[in-house]
Formats: sequence, C-alpha cells, structure tokens
Amino acid sequence: MTGEIATDFTASLPPWLVDDLDRITTEPPATTEARIAVVNRLADRNWREGNGGPFAAMVVDAASGAVVSVGVNVVLQSNLSAMHAEMMALSLAQQALGRWDLGAHGAEYELVVNWRPCVMCYGATMWSGVRALTIAGEGAEVERLTGFDEGPMPPDWKGEFERRGIRVSVGVGHDDALEVFRAFGASDAVVYNARGSSEG
Amino acid sequence: MTGEIATDFTASLPPWLVDDLDRITTEPPATTEARIAVVNRLADRNWREGNGGPFAAMVVDAASGAVVSVGVNVVLQSNLSAMHAEMMALSLAQQALGRWDLGAHGAEYELVVNWRPCVMCYGATMWSGVRALTIAGEGAEVERLTGFDEGPMPPDWKGEFERRGIRVSVGVGHDDALEVFRAFGASDAVVYNARGSSEG
Repeated sequence: MTGEIATDFTASLPPWLVDDLDRITTEPPATTEARIAVVNRLADRNWREGNGGPFAAMVVDAASGAVVSVGVNVVLQSNLSAMHAEMMALSLAQQALGRWDLGAHGAEYELVVNWRPCVMCYGATMWSGVRALTIAGEGAEVERLTGFDEGPMPPDWKGEFERRGIRVSVGVGHDDALEVFRAFGASDAVVYNARGSSEG
Repeated sequence: MTGEIATDFTASLPPWLVDDLDRITTEPPATTEARIAVVNRLADRNWREGNGGPFAAMVVDAASGAVVSVGVNVVLQSNLSAMHAEMMALSLAQQALGRWDLGAHGAEYELVVNWRPCVMCYGATMWSGVRALTIAGEGAEVERLTGFDEGPMPPDWKGEFERRGIRVSVGVGHDDALEVFRAFGASDAVVYNARGSSEG
C-alpha cells in the first residue's frame, strides 16, 4: 500500500441516468408491470454504457409508484465492488429522505429490481426499512446466462424477508429480464465476480 | 416523496477516527492479536461517540499488516443503513487502490473485523477480492448482547468463503470483543435493526 488512507468515498449515478431522471419520475409507474419495465430498460442500458453489470433498481412509494430513488450497478464506474443497483437505490433513497430507516413513521416503500438480489443486497434490503421487494425473477438463470456469482442464499430467503415485514413479489417481466441477461452474456462485457472463481 | 432525486451519496469516517489514523497506521499491526486489538478498540469508541453500532474493521496487507483502510459503523452518522464497518473499510480500500478487485495482481489483503459479518457484509466481503477474513468471534452472542439482527447466514458460511479463495480465522480477542458488546448492551444506545423485529 502506498499513499494516503481514504476517509470518505462517493458513489454516483452515471450521467446518462441522471439525464433520464425527468422521464422516469414524471409519470410514476403505478403498476408492477410499469415498475419492472423501467428497471429492465435501465439494466439493459447500464451494461451497454459500461458502468457495471446488467442490473437496475428503484425505490418507489408502494401505493402510488412515486419514485424516491433509482440505482444501477456502478461497480466498474466507481471501482467499488459493493455498488450494486440495490445498494445505490437504497442509499440514495435514504439520503433523499434523510434517514436510515425507510420504514419509519409507517412509510411503505417498495424496492423494485430486475432480479433477485445477491446475498449482499439481500442483507442490504433487510436493513433498509423497505416493506416490499418486487423482482422479475429469482432463479439461477442469472448466473448461467451472465456468469455472475450471486452467493449462497438461505433456502427460505422469502420467509426470512416476510418474518421481518417485507413482502416479496416475483415474476412480472420475467422474460424481458432474461432477455437482458442473454444479451449481456452474448457480449464481451466484464464479469466482475465470476461464478465459483477464486480469482475475483 | 417530496424533493429531488439524489444522484450521489458520500460516506465518511467520523472526525475522531480521522484524527486517530496516524496512530493506527504508524505501527502496522504485524500480529493477529494486534490487528484485533485495533478493531476492538475502535468498535468500543464508535458506539460511545454515537456514530453507529459497536463494530469496526480494517483492510491490511495480510503479510505485513500495513493498513490500507479503516472502517467503523456509521449508520447513524450517515443516515445510510448499509454503512457497516466492513462496507466502509472495503470501499475505502478500493478507493485508495483505485480498483474494485482488491485481489487483483495477486494481492493478499485481509479484512479484520471485531465479529462475524452480518449477511450483507458477508456478501460484500465475498465480492471485494480480499483473501482472508479475521474475526474475534462468530456466535449469536452479538445478537443476544446487543439486540442487533445479523440476518440468516448459510450454515456452511466458512466453506462458502473458502471455496472462493478466502481464508477464515476466528477467535483471537474473543473475550475483549464480547466486553464491547456487553457495554453497548448495557447502555441506551440506538439499536437500528432490532432482532426479529419488523419495525425496522
């Protein structure tokens, strides 16, 4: 190690997504179909822009769909391996609301992601205070199609969420999500955590 | 949701820890005992200062002990529920080195923590590229003494690390770590993720 000890770090949304925020927030996605369509679209653009893996997330008001935050995977752009889409969306929502518990005061926020979170983001979702998780799919297809390692999830991962007051909804937009992974897998984009590899 | 969509967030070490960095880095902790002693000391001070839970972490060169980064839990200070000690230390190490894979180019970095990571930080460690994890303990005492929820860890959590090239070492400084948790538990400090609670 040479150089100074870092005392802070910053993670940012990519410029193309900042430019897209007006479009995303102007018409709150009222239905699950509309919410998943947004994250599938952003996930696809994200890897093509080179920011990171094909993953996107949003925190929305569960009832109205009003968008609180948006996130994409910025591992490559930020040089930070923890900056998955869920981590960005949850942190940016907490920053916007000025509190570490999104569920405070009875608020009902929903995390929308284009696939089941990896084990890190599974925990991050649990600690965030969201009351619902909506994903397009949950199977091992993501690992098979993209090569990413998602980590060891507990068998009853949904039950563990539900016992902590987080509802889980799976399946809307499933085929579109797989299409994004398929396109990523067919490219030469960087897989920053190869499945089963010890090479990082 | 009122107000703007956030486009970036920053997480910082607390001022007292920044002031302490010279002391921590001047004499690299060469032994496991010395490394764990640092994180136990920082964990204890951290909750007393009000930054977050009683947890601290460091990334060090596994051979020499040269300190690459230091982290403490800053959930309360940052208003970000993901800013556990491990997340801070790993992200600050990656920022200092300018890469998302701490294990690139054959580097052997070790994450030192005062207890077994929660499920979120378990995943974060897995994706970070560190080659070793050193902790003072791993049992449910942390939940019993502090009230924090650590989340559902896979039964073979060590094997999952080892299959990904991450060595695990447990037990040095165990009693001192428990003493920190005991003092925290006896205080009226905020437990931001109560065990088994659905109230966030």
